[in-house]
Amino acid sequence: MLSILHFGGQQVNICGDIIKIRTVNMRTAFYISDGTALTAEAFGHALLSMFPVELNHKTLPFIDTQEKAENVCRQIKQALNDDGEPPLIFHTFVNEKLKSKIVNCGGIGYDFLEQFKGSVEQQLQVKAQPKTHRTHGAHKNYNFRVDAINYALDNDDGKKLNQLDDADIILVGVSRTGKTPTSLYLALQYGIKAANYPITDDDDFEHLDLPRELKLQRHKLFGLTLNVQRLHEIRSGRRQGSHYASMQQCRFELQEVEKLYRREAIPFINSTHFSVEEIAAKILAKTNLQRRRF
Amino acid sequence: MLSILHFGGQQVNICGDIIKIRTVNMRTAFYISDGTALTAEAFGHALLSMFPVELNHKTLPFIDTQEKAENVCRQIKQALNDDGEPPLIFHTFVNEKLKSKIVNCGGIGYDFLEQFKGSVEQQLQVKAQPKTHRTHGAHKNYNFRVDAINYALDNDDGKKLNQLDDADIILVGVSRTGKTPTSLYLALQYGIKAANYPITDDDDFEHLDLPRELKLQRHKLFGLTLNVQRLHEIRSGRRQGSHYASMQQCRFELQEVEKLYRREAIPFINSTHFSVEEIAAKILAKTNLQRRRF
Repeated sequence: MLSILHFGGQQVNICGDIIKIRTVNMRTAFYISDGTALTAEAFGHALLSMFPVELNHKTLPFIDTQEKAENVCRQIKQALNDDGEPPLIFHTFVNEKLKSKIVNCGGIGYDFLEQFKGSVEQQLQVKAQPKTHRTHGAHKNYNFRVDAINYALDNDDGKKLNQLDDADIILVGVSRTGKTPTSLYLALQYGIKAANYPITDDDDFEHLDLPRELKLQRHKLFGLTLNVQRLHEIRSGRRQGSHYASMQQCRFELQEVEKLYRREAIPFINSTHFSVEEIAAKILAKTNLQRRRF
Repeated sequence: MLSILHFGGQQVNICGDIIKIRTVNMRTAFYISDGTALTAEAFGHALLSMFPVELNHKTLPFIDTQEKAENVCRQIKQALNDDGEPPLIFHTFVNEKLKSKIVNCGGIGYDFLEQFKGSVEQQLQVKAQPKTHRTHGAHKNYNFRVDAINYALDNDDGKKLNQLDDADIILVGVSRTGKTPTSLYLALQYGIKAANYPITDDDDFEHLDLPRELKLQRHKLFGLTLNVQRLHEIRSGRRQGSHYASMQQCRFELQEVEKLYRREAIPFINSTHFSVEEIAAKILAKTNLQRRRF
């Protein structure tokens, strides 16, 4: 049986041959918390996104007992051993004892809450009272969100036109321009009730018009559009080689729908280079829509 | 015409009467960025959640021109004037010129990226290369997420049983225990394909069993449950006074479903006190499910 020694990102077998176990010797970033670790992730990802460096990412949420903390400590030491460099530890602990356990295992700790706490205490003239589950815990906004999600599901893809009075916003666009993910994200992230309606008219795309129900809600309409090439790619992923996915049809539909937006004075964005988060944030910025949730 | 002077959160009219314009003199927290401001929000909310203080929150994303920055500067000065105290400014700018404009308008700036940049540079031996839209921009993970969202929609509420091979996880539970929001959140946040299946059996709840299709995927099943009182409240919001919403029926269904979970060795959590974020994070922690997205 071969016994194997670790060093760095490599292994050495008993014959002294070096076996690469990773293509590069990647350093590890840990995101650790006694809560969800969502804040530790948001913080660490934002910071690391400034660096053109690949890392292994490990999120360890709900580290809320001494035993779990000891297990994490072993993982940190293991990473130090495997990578040959100390891992970066982005952490947000409420429990000071657990925190002190974690920061003394050989990693490089980043504690942004601690860093800024003193200054905010001074400004607000109040002592910090850390509590788990305050950032991402269930609270009074919960019902708003679930209502908004149910609303988005019920009013996806033009399924119903009799609930549009309740909409905060109505997204419109041709097929596959991101209406559904955006509606759901608006609901989950901001508690906003977003309906969406597909602009399709196979028979007569040249004389596009909005149904009466949408015209009555014109002030709530918001259009999405894409570059032709991107729409072609997305549609080809669904129906390769179809008329529906052809460059020609994509170009035609996008031209016509953008004409419609202009004619009806519907605000719109081209979301080709944007993530769902960015599209949602842009819509909020453009419409002054009030979020129900902070 | 009355001319009005501001001080603090109050106004004084020309006769010297004090008119309260807010019930309390609330200070303002701004979240400002030349990107989505999602990182600035996550950072500021986490920090402020440690303080039992109410604030006005204002998010200003995509402040990417000198003109927009000047407008923001006016808003900061206005808040200082209205509140009587300098607002707190949580910001994440890539553009240094715009940042310097924003931090010199009379607010108290918090710049966590700047604070930790030097240390990470030293650790990684690489200079930071800030770029907008790196944290929340569209990238190769985009298709995973949209696929996962479409999967969750197609496989919501037991709609289909022939796509369960593709599921990463299958959430089960009685009606109104949070299966749908959790599935969608897993898709949006982590790119995980989550199906969900409602445990209902009006005729014979005492002899609950899983359909054959689910039994074949037993290793992917994950149960949700709630406290009786909470389920009663949620169901009453939908069908007040119904048998379905009664304490008796809720207690009965929850008892039986929890028996089923134990009998079939299905891992489950009681999500009464958890937000969607926490439920999702707990599921990940309990199942070692691999997220597709960081």
